[in-house]
Amino acid sequence: MATLCFQSPSKPIFNFHPKTKPSKSLITKVSIFKPRATVQSQGLVIATEPEPVFTSVKTFAPATVANLGPGFDFLGCAVDGLGDHVTLHVDPSVRNGDISISEITGTTTKLSFDPHQNCAGIAAMATMKMLGIKSVGLSLALRKGLPLGSGLGSSAASAAAAAVAVNELFGRKLGNDELVLAGLESEAKVSGFHADNIAPAIMGGFVLIRSYEPLDLKPLRFPLEKDLFFVLVSPDFEAPTKKMRAALAKEIPMADHVWNSSQAAALVAAVVEGDVASLGKALSSDKVVEPKRAPLIPGMEAVKKAALEAGAFGCTISGAGPTAVAVIDTAEKGYEIGEKMVEAFSRFGNLKSVASVKKLDKIGARLIKSM
Amino acid sequence: MATLCFQSPSKPIFNFHPKTKPSKSLITKVSIFKPRATVQSQGLVIATEPEPVFTSVKTFAPATVANLGPGFDFLGCAVDGLGDHVTLHVDPSVRNGDISISEITGTTTKLSFDPHQNCAGIAAMATMKMLGIKSVGLSLALRKGLPLGSGLGSSAASAAAAAVAVNELFGRKLGNDELVLAGLESEAKVSGFHADNIAPAIMGGFVLIRSYEPLDLKPLRFPLEKDLFFVLVSPDFEAPTKKMRAALAKEIPMADHVWNSSQAAALVAAVVEGDVASLGKALSSDKVVEPKRAPLIPGMEAVKKAALEAGAFGCTISGAGPTAVAVIDTAEKGYEIGEKMVEAFSRFGNLKSVASVKKLDKIGARLIKSM
Repeated sequence: MATLCFQSPSKPIFNFHPKTKPSKSLITKVSIFKPRATVQSQGLVIATEPEPVFTSVKTFAPATVANLGPGFDFLGCAVDGLGDHVTLHVDPSVRNGDISISEITGTTTKLSFDPHQNCAGIAAMATMKMLGIKSVGLSLALRKGLPLGSGLGSSAASAAAAAVAVNELFGRKLGNDELVLAGLESEAKVSGFHADNIAPAIMGGFVLIRSYEPLDLKPLRFPLEKDLFFVLVSPDFEAPTKKMRAALAKEIPMADHVWNSSQAAALVAAVVEGDVASLGKALSSDKVVEPKRAPLIPGMEAVKKAALEAGAFGCTISGAGPTAVAVIDTAEKGYEIGEKMVEAFSRFGNLKSVASVKKLDKIGARLIKSM
Repeated sequence: MATLCFQSPSKPIFNFHPKTKPSKSLITKVSIFKPRATVQSQGLVIATEPEPVFTSVKTFAPATVANLGPGFDFLGCAVDGLGDHVTLHVDPSVRNGDISISEITGTTTKLSFDPHQNCAGIAAMATMKMLGIKSVGLSLALRKGLPLGSGLGSSAASAAAAAVAVNELFGRKLGNDELVLAGLESEAKVSGFHADNIAPAIMGGFVLIRSYEPLDLKPLRFPLEKDLFFVLVSPDFEAPTKKMRAALAKEIPMADHVWNSSQAAALVAAVVEGDVASLGKALSSDKVVEPKRAPLIPGMEAVKKAALEAGAFGCTISGAGPTAVAVIDTAEKGYEIGEKMVEAFSRFGNLKSVASVKKLDKIGARLIKSM
């Protein structure tokens, strides 16, 4: 019987307390919740292999904006209505404990069908390993809603949708931290060991990555009653993450460090207070990363200027680019700002671009259908 | 008639909106609230010279802990029950528009009686100038409750008490931002152009300095219903601010920049949520400033270790030191931690030290008596 359910994920959050166990590794940490004997050297497994509770699930995971200016490498948030879908089936024709990618559709079909080379495949397999799945084979269909290399967490959306699909199929045994770890295996292979896309893709809202060893994620609650809109303008331009990372300074002048830290602190205060104007001001104030990367994206500086002149509270590069992201408090103003930004990309960067106005996604990766 | 009043300062907060006036200087900014013609090149004055509303006032301003680990140079908070007092009289024997320092008592009497060289004098005169006081002379008595060079914002406490005293005497015409600017004139002369002591000394609680040009202060509200205690351990050791600043690196590795920024962000989240354990963890996590300064204070590393082993949520150097500050959620635990810290200063630094356990001061500089 098919059940259609739109629900917010009520996955348990595992609160690690690194202070009391400062020297423990991630594997030992997660093993707190499992019998020691079941921890394998190659991954994390749970005590008893769970059985599938559905024969098929469909999940969605949202696009994400990482960095947010001064939050470089430790802050990200999810945006609603853009993202990837994964459909996962129990498949007797697939070897037990294994996964097969059956279909890739949507905005890009250039991705590998080898599950070891595909973001969704890697995350799904890491999740299966954590769950200790040895007696069931799965097939996975990926529908991309995001272009690759846009700076909107395309790989993280695929990984998040896949990790959550596996977890849902087997009765939701893993918590957010573990799903983020599974997604990180994929991110590490595809775009670098950074959780600032995968964590908000899984958890929704704003997520602050406090540390990796042990993984310590801090969700920042943007007030439910307030609205926050992102104007996302993606130009037809390739900004490879590696090149954008190579552009960064290895050493930061103390004055810039103090400035950026204070703006990151102000950004967090603005998020939890739902002060969109302050949020925009902080997001717009990066002196460390944006000044190095913006010149590599034709027209970006003019696009930012156009966004601010059109009334945006702030504007910066989304992730490693090339998408420009501006923030505002109403969709109407967002559309006006988006038009001006597209115009600026065309005029000053000679680039075609597409604008969209999206709300903050407060839910994250979710089950949308199960059978 | 003498009026004894213990009250929280309800000074107006002037909210500057730098976004809408990005290129304006501080002087022009403050002049938004005053007729242009009255703005003088040497300072900020109000339209009509106010008359004194009291003949005498007594004020108190609290000690402050600046930096708080990763909040270096932009974050500070006030601690209750430690600080300086200023008594200010209308004095016909003092030249109109001038100020005379009549008495200095308390923990140190080595301070200059020249109002141009004394923290309290400089701040009082700057405040008088802002108010445009030309027809009244004042005499000021300073009672120091804080030792100099302790890392607890001694100069800021004097400046804050003096600025607030002048403002109260003349009917509270200035807001927090202006009082901080007056205090900054003093700080710039005595210990450097930094508002991370003077802003919390005046405003209470935690204050984030977002920018100086224009001055943009963000009070961070620690929840009223929660308790936060500081264990302050001051060793008998001189740590001159200049020497402590010279010890800092001029360039910060990118990885440390990202780490410290993320911890500063986490610290702010912990403050506004009143999560003392997280606050301590973030305060304790500085990789940029503390590692350079701690080795210059004998025993500091051992003192931090002792504090954490005794159950403190976090420990770092207060301001530029030499005071060590630990945070905890009850006074009882605070006393135990303080004992261990004193012991460690003695054993590993061969230094005598004094411990005190103080609550967060949520009020800031205040009028305590008026006549």
